[in-house]
This record gives sequence, C-alpha cells and structure tokens, in this order.
Amino acid sequence: MPGRLGEEMYGWAVDLFPLNRSITGPGLRETLRYLQRIVPELMLHEVPSGTRVFDWTVPDEWRVNHARLIGPDGEVVVDFADNNLHLWGYSVPTQCRVSLDELQPHLHSLDYNSDAVPYRTSYFAPKWGFCLSHDHRLSLKPGEYTVDIDTVLEPGSMTYGELILPGDSEQEILLSSYCCHPSMANNELSGPIVTVALARWLQSLDRRRYTYRIVLAPETIGSLAYLSRNLDAMKRNTVGGYVLSCIGDDRSYSYLPTRWGNTPVDRVARHILDTTVGTYNVRPFRNRGSDERQYNSPGVNIPVAVLSRSIFGMYPEYHTSKDNLDLISPAGLQGGYDLVRNVVLAWENNAMYRRDMPGEPFLSKYGLYEEVSYLRNDMFFFIRDVAAFADGEHDLIALAEMNNLSIVECIDVIDKMLACKLIARV
Amino acid sequence: MPGRLGEEMYGWAVDLFPLNRSITGPGLRETLRYLQRIVPELMLHEVPSGTRVFDWTVPDEWRVNHARLIGPDGEVVVDFADNNLHLWGYSVPTQCRVSLDELQPHLHSLDYNSDAVPYRTSYFAPKWGFCLSHDHRLSLKPGEYTVDIDTVLEPGSMTYGELILPGDSEQEILLSSYCCHPSMANNELSGPIVTVALARWLQSLDRRRYTYRIVLAPETIGSLAYLSRNLDAMKRNTVGGYVLSCIGDDRSYSYLPTRWGNTPVDRVARHILDTTVGTYNVRPFRNRGSDERQYNSPGVNIPVAVLSRSIFGMYPEYHTSKDNLDLISPAGLQGGYDLVRNVVLAWENNAMYRRDMPGEPFLSKYGLYEEVSYLRNDMFFFIRDVAAFADGEHDLIALAEMNNLSIVECIDVIDKMLACKLIARV
Amino acid sequence: MPGRLGEEMYGWAVDLFPLNRSITGPGLRETLRYLQRIVPELMLHEVPSGTRVFDWTVPDEWRVNHARLIGPDGEVVVDFADNNLHLWGYSVPTQCRVSLDELQPHLHSLDYNSDAVPYRTSYFAPKWGFCLSHDHRLSLKPGEYTVDIDTVLEPGSMTYGELILPGDSEQEILLSSYCCHPSMANNELSGPIVTVALARWLQSLDRRRYTYRIVLAPETIGSLAYLSRNLDAMKRNTVGGYVLSCIGDDRSYSYLPTRWGNTPVDRVARHILDTTVGTYNVRPFRNRGSDERQYNSPGVNIPVAVLSRSIFGMYPEYHTSKDNLDLISPAGLQGGYDLVRNVVLAWENNAMYRRDMPGEPFLSKYGLYEEVSYLRNDMFFFIRDVAAFADGEHDLIALAEMNNLSIVECIDVIDKMLACKLIARV
Repeated sequence: MPGRLGEEMYGWAVDLFPLNRSITGPGLRETLRYLQRIVPELMLHEVPSGTRVFDWTVPDEWRVNHARLIGPDGEVVVDFADNNLHLWGYSVPTQCRVSLDELQPHLHSLDYNSDAVPYRTSYFAPKWGFCLSHDHRLSLKPGEYTVDIDTVLEPGSMTYGELILPGDSEQEILLSSYCCHPSMANNELSGPIVTVALARWLQSLDRRRYTYRIVLAPETIGSLAYLSRNLDAMKRNTVGGYVLSCIGDDRSYSYLPTRWGNTPVDRVARHILDTTVGTYNVRPFRNRGSDERQYNSPGVNIPVAVLSRSIFGMYPEYHTSKDNLDLISPAGLQGGYDLVRNVVLAWENNAMYRRDMPGEPFLSKYGLYEEVSYLRNDMFFFIRDVAAFADGEHDLIALAEMNNLSIVECIDVIDKMLACKLIARV
Repeated sequence: MPGRLGEEMYGWAVDLFPLNRSITGPGLRETLRYLQRIVPELMLHEVPSGTRVFDWTVPDEWRVNHARLIGPDGEVVVDFADNNLHLWGYSVPTQCRVSLDELQPHLHSLDYNSDAVPYRTSYFAPKWGFCLSHDHRLSLKPGEYTVDIDTVLEPGSMTYGELILPGDSEQEILLSSYCCHPSMANNELSGPIVTVALARWLQSLDRRRYTYRIVLAPETIGSLAYLSRNLDAMKRNTVGGYVLSCIGDDRSYSYLPTRWGNTPVDRVARHILDTTVGTYNVRPFRNRGSDERQYNSPGVNIPVAVLSRSIFGMYPEYHTSKDNLDLISPAGLQGGYDLVRNVVLAWENNAMYRRDMPGEPFLSKYGLYEEVSYLRNDMFFFIRDVAAFADGEHDLIALAEMNNLSIVECIDVIDKMLACKLIARV
Repeated sequence: MPGRLGEEMYGWAVDLFPLNRSITGPGLRETLRYLQRIVPELMLHEVPSGTRVFDWTVPDEWRVNHARLIGPDGEVVVDFADNNLHLWGYSVPTQCRVSLDELQPHLHSLDYNSDAVPYRTSYFAPKWGFCLSHDHRLSLKPGEYTVDIDTVLEPGSMTYGELILPGDSEQEILLSSYCCHPSMANNELSGPIVTVALARWLQSLDRRRYTYRIVLAPETIGSLAYLSRNLDAMKRNTVGGYVLSCIGDDRSYSYLPTRWGNTPVDRVARHILDTTVGTYNVRPFRNRGSDERQYNSPGVNIPVAVLSRSIFGMYPEYHTSKDNLDLISPAGLQGGYDLVRNVVLAWENNAMYRRDMPGEPFLSKYGLYEEVSYLRNDMFFFIRDVAAFADGEHDLIALAEMNNLSIVECIDVIDKMLACKLIARV
C-alpha cells in the first residue's frame, strides 16, 4: 500500500497531466513553475531561440492557440482541445483544404495499436500533421478536409530547471529528468515528479556527503543546452548520475547502464536493484533513449544510467494516449521513489573500512552480539565478515553482498562497529 | 594400503587420544612433549596467564582432578574418568546439590545425534556443566543430583610448540595445527600428528628452498599468542601457509582457501588437489573455523588456507564422542600426509623457465625422447610444450597443467631439460 | 560459384602437383620458380647445406633419379615414377636384395586407411623405405625383393622465396606458407598458391598501410633458416602474421591461434571468421603443426596464427595419396583466398576513432541517414554507435561487432563519417 507520499506525487501528476508540454513554450514553463512551488529553490533558466548548443540550435518557441481537422461534412475529426496528442508537436501554422489523399501523409496512427492516439513531433523540420487512432483513420471518408492549425513559431526561449544541493564533498551526483512530453503520464510526468520528491527529501537531510545536481529540462536539446552552460563544472565534479524516466507504473523495474557499464554509478544501482528488487530488466546501453545519450557522449564522458520501471520503448502504451493517469499509480510512483532514494542512501553510506588490530575481535566484550541479535541472526555473520575483510579493499557494498544483505540494512550495525572502534573508515 | 608411516602415525594417535587437552593445562603440555619426542627440535614455549594478546587475554590455567554427576539414587550419571568430553571444558570448581530442573541448563546434548556425547567449552565465561548423549539425558529421572566438579583454575601458562627449519631462502611456508581438543581423533589429533610427520620429513631433506615455520598451539588464543610474539618476522618472511585440520579420516579431501582465494598458497594447493586428488570439496572462506581466522585477519594479512579431509563442521561425528579412533585410520592419515607433502614438493619445485635460442630444439640430438619414452608417452608433449612456452611467464605448474600432469610427475624431466640446457630457470 | 581467380589458382595446382618437392632439391626449386612467374618480384634465396640455423643444420640436397621395389617374381611392386609418395623422403641410395621379413621395417602403410599410400620422410636420420597402401602390403608374398633406390644426397642448398611489399608503416604483417610436400594438394599446394595470389593482389593496391613480408620456404628447417637471416628485422617490425596451410578444400574453416591467443593477430582473424564465416573449428595452440611453431617460439616471440580450411591432422586424406586434386577445388581455393584477403582488409582498416564535440551529432544536417539508407537499415544504428563510442578506446572492429557487422561492411560508412568530421582517427 502506498504511503502519503505516493498519493501526493500522484496528485501532482493529475494537476500536470493536461498541460501541453513541448521542448519550448508555455506548457513546459508552467510545468516547471508547478514543480518550483514544491521545491522553491529550483531555479528556472531560459535559453534564447537560435542559441548554438554544440552540434544543435535551440529552435523558435512554439505555442498552440487552437488546432482542428474538419471533415467533408463539417464535422470535427480531431481537436487539439480534446487531446493535445492529436496535433504533431511543432506543427507549423496551416490553414488549407485538402483531399483525403493529400491529407494522408499528414496523419499518423499505429496499425498495431489501433485504438490509441500516438505521439509525434517534428522539432527541426517544418511540418504539420495530426495523430489519431488507426481505427478512426480507417473510418475517414473521401472528400475535402479543412486543416485549421493556429500555432505560433517565433523567437523566444527554452526553459529548464536546476537545483544544486551542496554536500560535504564537491563531488556531485546528477539526477536528471525531462518535462517536454504533452499529456502522457509515465513517459514523462513520473520522472520529474519523482525527481522533485527526491529533491525535497535531499534538502531535508541534516548533512549530505555528496553534492546533488538536479536537472529538469526538455529532452535532448534541453540537456545539451544545460551541458553547454555547465560542462566544465560537471567534468570537474560530477561523479555520475541517473536519468529518471518512466518510473511511476506498477510493473517491473528496469536498468539501462552507463556507456561503460562498470562504473560506480552502475555498481551502486545494481547493488540496490539486486538486493531490494531482485528481478528486473537490464537493457543494453545500445537501447539508450533519453538524456543519458548526451551525458555519456565521448565529448562529455559523465557516466549516467537510467532508472525506470517499464522503460521507454518496452511497454505497449509507450508514446500513445494510453500512457495516461491509469498507467501510473501512487504505489508505482512510491516504488520508483524508494528505489532512487535507496540508491542515494547507498552513495551516502558506501565506504571502505580498515581494521588494524591483528586477529579477530573478542566480540563478547563489546556487547555487539547481544545488541545485534535484536536485529537479525544473519547480522552475526555480517559483523564477523566485516572484521575479517576490513582491509581497505572491501567497501560496504562488497561486505553486504558477501552476506546477501543490502547496504541499507547494514548502516546501523556499521555505525555501532565504528563506535566500538572495531573498524575505522578509510 | 597404508605404508609403515600410516601405521606409525596411527600409533601416536592411540597414545595421545586419552589425554584431557584444553587451551591450557597438563593435557596440552603432555601432548606437545609426546610430539617433541618424535621431533626433538620442536621447541615448547609458555605464555603466562593474563598476558594480553591483541584483543584477547590468556586465561588462567585449568586442570581437572575429578568430575562426576551423581543421580538421586546415588548412581554415577557421568564421570570425567570415563570420557573427558563429559565435562565442559574450563568448568569452574563446583560442589552442589540441584534438582533435575536446576541441572538442565548445565547439561548439553544433541537431539539430532542422540547417542553421541557432544563437546562443549566455556573458556572466557565462568560456567560449569556436563555433556551426555541425548538418549541418556531423556532417561534422567526427577530428583536431587550431586554435582562434584573438582577442577583448578589458577594463574599458570599456555603452552605452544614451534619449529623453524631454515632453507635457502628466508621466505617461509607456515604449517600450523592445534592441540587443544580432548579425546577426539580427527578433530584434532590428525592435524598435529600429520604436521609432526611432515616436520620429520622436512628435516631429513638435504636442502630446502623455503624456510618452514611449524606451529602447534591451542586454537585461536594460541595462534593469537604466537602471532603476538612473531608478527614482525612473519609479516616480513611468511609467504603463506596451511592449517592442517581433520586430515586423518578416509573420506573426501576438502579445501578452504585463503581470504584472497587467488594467492600462490591457493594456486599450489589447488594444483595438487586437482592433479592428485581430482574431486574434493571446496569450502568458501566464509566457512572458516580454525586458526586461518587469525592468520588471514586484516592486521596480519598472511594468506593461510586449510587442508582437510572431512572438514570441520561438515561430518556427522564432528565435535562428539563419535570422532574417535575408529573414524581415523592409518590409510587416512597417510593420505593426508601425502597430500601436504605434495603441496610442499610443489612449493619446492615450482619455478619459471626461459628458452633463449630461437626456434624449436632439435630434440633427437639430446636423446631426451628416448630417455623419456621409458617414462610415459605424454611426456613427449610436455617436453615440446615446455620448450614452446619457456618465455619466463609460465611456471612449472602452468606447464604441467597444460598437459594434464601434476607438477610432481614433471620434476625429473625438467631436471633433464635443465641439464641439456634446453631451458634455464628464471 | 568460384570466380575466375579460383579457376586460375586451381590451374596452378594442376601444374605443380606432379613435382617431387622436399625440403631441398629440384622439385622445391621448380615450384618456387613457377610461383615466381606469377609474382616476378618473389626473390629466391639459397641456403648452403651444412649451415647451422639455431639448434638445427641444413641437410644435404636430395634428388631422386629413380626408385623401385621389385617383387620375387620380378614384378614392380611400387615405382616412384607412378607416385612420388611411394618413396620415403630423403631415402638414402640403396641397392639390395632382402626377404619380405627384412623388408617390412622399410615399408609404411596405414591399417586404418588401408587403400591410401601414406607420406613419410626421414630428413635427419639416414634411412630408406617405401610407402604403399595397407591392402597392397598385405598382398605381398614371401620371397626375395629387390630394392633399387637411385637417389643422390650431396652438399647443395635449400631454396626459399621471399617478397617484401612496403607500406606506409614499417610495421609488417607476415604471410607464410611452405613448399616441401610432394604430390599432395591441400597440404600443401593450397597454402603457397593462395599466398601468391594474395601477394599479387597486395602488389596491385595503390597504397598499403602495413608492410607485408611474404615467405615461402620448406617447413621447419626453411622457416628456421629464414628466421636466422631476418630475426632482428622481424623482431623490430613484424607485428604478427599467419601461416596459410590446407586452405583449398571445400570443408569448414579452421583457426589455430598464436601462442598467446589474445594478440591483435588473433583479434583480427577471429573477427573476420566470426562475421564472415560464422561457424569454424578452433584448434588449441597445443595442436600446432607448421611454421607457427618457430615464429611463436620463446626466442622469436612473433605471434603467428594458422588459417586453414580442413586443418592439418584433422581430415581423413591428410598425409596420404588421397590428398589429391579432387580434394581441393576452385571454389575451395577462392574461399581460402577471400578469408585471408578479408583478414588483410581488416588490418588495413581497423583504427581507433575520437569524437570531440559534446553530445550526439545533429545527424540530419549531414544527409548521412539518407545516404546510408541506400545501404542498409542496420547502418543507422552503426552510425549512432560510432558517434556514441568514439572515445579513443573502441576500434572499428569493436564498433562493428557491437552491431553484429563485419569490419569489411563498415569501411565505406566510416569514410563518410570521417569526411563529415563527425569523428576523427586517433
């Protein structure tokens, strides 16, 4: 059963669902302002249209006044007001009358998912078009159709959100998600919502070992713009991070590793997934699909993995009108939040230990066994192994895994052993 | 069929079996003196009660005058004189009369092994008690029992034995076993007996490449005391070593690796086990149970493995009266001795080889094939491979394994190749 | 269906088949002169009898005038003129009359291959003898046999061929085969024939990245003599190479790795075998049998693998009269040639790439997708992955394998990406 937080996060999703997000424009900006009300320290930044970001250029800002397709008999075939997925993202303003044949290249539907409205955009090539279900499309009759797309494409800016939470170390963990999808819930309201909930929790901690860099931007062009402004600092400080995406449904968890596959980013995440989730999907980096593409690129070289439940491209509702508020749930969002929170806890607590006194400790004089037996029997063996392997080469993750434990279960006992000076942190 | 040595070793076990060994006291001291008669160079050392050894303290010396439990009708329930396992090790002197209910916490038996007398001690917490078979315990009737434990606990010393056999190199191999168990045969008379037989053989060698450090001490507190007196020398010189334990029965061999699992100590032992034994049990280091716990501890860092037949904790007679002279045998002791002797031979003979002349040797001019064919056909391929891989990176173990041979089968042929100057030692 | 080249190579085999090759003598010399007519730059060298080459000595030159075994009734049992395999290679001149019993140690046949004439030599021990089929041998009747072996063994020289094709780099790839087998086709006319065809192709290239060192010599003593004259240059420049042997039949391909097994020589060959052949035999280096024995020897240390179809020792016709012109084919020779040519193309084109601009490229502006879609759909993913992994640590083989492609399929696309400056060669 989800806690209060799951319900709260789901409420944010309900509020944000109707907004017409894109890589620029009012829907994106309003979404970020809503999230800013939850974590007021989230800073919003604007990048002007036309700004060069590496190999790319920030496009004009796009907004929709209205958009409709009217049929031969004057009936409304699809209306943006009913579902913002009906209009291709970045459709250019168009008023015209066309035959059904002329219209077809401007329609998009999915024959294999025939009752869903798909999601399509054309950010960088000037196009227009409508999405509708395949069943609906097949029912269209010949005749003259009226295209009434009242959109505006003009110089403006692209908005992103950023929050830096300083820690004891300048070394940073990046948490990144994106806010450019219109009315779809798992992909992608779950990512920014869980990210903001984590930000609020991280803020509440007395003390953080790592600095946290939290980025909410439009996908691809947004993370590229963010990188272009922060590349030096991130190359210097960012140890690695996670893209949170599709993390609010109730299905299996998924993991897409960093480009290297064997970095501390991967080790920590896999440990938490292995010990708290157990069975989960592992996608190869070749199936990358979100902002990890930019963070891991050779010119950036920051190891960033993706934490998901039903990962992008791998669930039937993906990029359609079926990815709606029924697909995510309070429990689903809570599960995603708990996963990432445990990953963060692992980063905060993982360390190497050293025991300098030769021989095993004479444990009974520390009362540790007695105290520990209130916890769990397997903690006896854990304590014994921590003392035996505290050689400065085994970190807490290794010591936990040696005993089939999760690092999050071991934090208290390790603290007691440190207090007894049975071990010391390296 | 066991050789003369197996019979001789079994005879030592027969002599030593009745003594009441513990971590201190006359039984331990007499056992070491008996072994000293076999290898007179074995030095006995005493560590006073109260000596701090790392996190531990050497306890008072313990000896037993007599110990009996008398039943309600005056009958002797158990008598230490019948079997020294009946009295808990380090039982404090006690004279009292108690009801059966009051007695129960001072009795120990095994419901899953109901006709065996188990072995129990309480070295560091002052307790008293009796062990008996579970069947016997269930037959006890209510009434008043007389506890008559005439033991002495007073400052004295703890005895251990040590023998250093110098070799060409100051680098040492450690052989360690323990002498603190009362009347049990496999665990642990087999270990000290095989160790002493090996010491006698090592002494007889014209020349030793390595120095051998042989330690016979009470388990845990004894090896800790030994380490506390010799730590600097051992950290400087001891390459690694083996604890010999439970090595005289007729069952499968067992191997418990060093803490690292991949040291030369492991490589040499696994090679001998693989090529001379074939199938054997491998226990994880997590199942460690004897003095390897101290040698491998982070403050000591000497890689020490355990060589056993039925290893501690893994055979039904373990720590009971059934671990008696029927469980071990002359052939079992001989097999254990042969195993460790081969491990030592591997250490003495393993080396890297180099061949500097380009191309294959023109073997027929050395008469090697002819000489070798008296040995075995597979030696042809071994000779060929030694010449082909004598690149200073393949040691004799690697060359032997490449040909499914044991290093002990290859020593003669390698010596001939060296004599012909076909290869040189690195 | 074999191309023109397969037919041409088969024609060379037809011409060369009847010659009586050995490790010295006119048959060897004529074979090399024939190959020299195809590639006139092939240089022939002579090494005098008696020359010491490392542990070996070049033997006297051997030639056969005639050799016959005459039976009790005056009938010709075997005649060298019918099949040069009938006479043991390097048979000493012999004229004598012997009983069948006395003759038997001088006969060689195969009971497990009873209708084939086997191949036997005795280069370094002075012997004489005849080979015949086992069926034939069993039919010999008792009586007096006349041995008429008119051979000449006298100081002369051993011939080998060499061709150096300079490239942009002084780093060399070695291609080596041998010409010392009498009338057998796969082992070994296929090797020298494919080698010479490759030499002609390599000569025709506008530009070579690597220098190619091509050696055709008698097996063992010939490659040793060659090494003794060229060892310094080869140790300095030869990256590695391939022995071509048994490479003209129609059966599966085979691979025998270098002594190390994981050198670039192995990586390149295994990549081509994996991606263009798929299923093939891998032999261990322990099964080495040709000149790779000398090149890989510790005093030489040049990694050389063997590329074969039915590899030596592993096909039923091996070293018998059944290894004739029916066993090889135009298509078989062409397949062997194509394999090695692809290996050479891989060496010429494999390189590391770097992408310095952060983020993914904005691919649509380069028109690459459009151009590439004429090629193949999977090239989209290849381009994407090249950009994502151009970190100076992934070579073209790694990038191709990541996409289940062969390097030879990727050369054009990589050239286009280089031209667009999307990546740069390291």
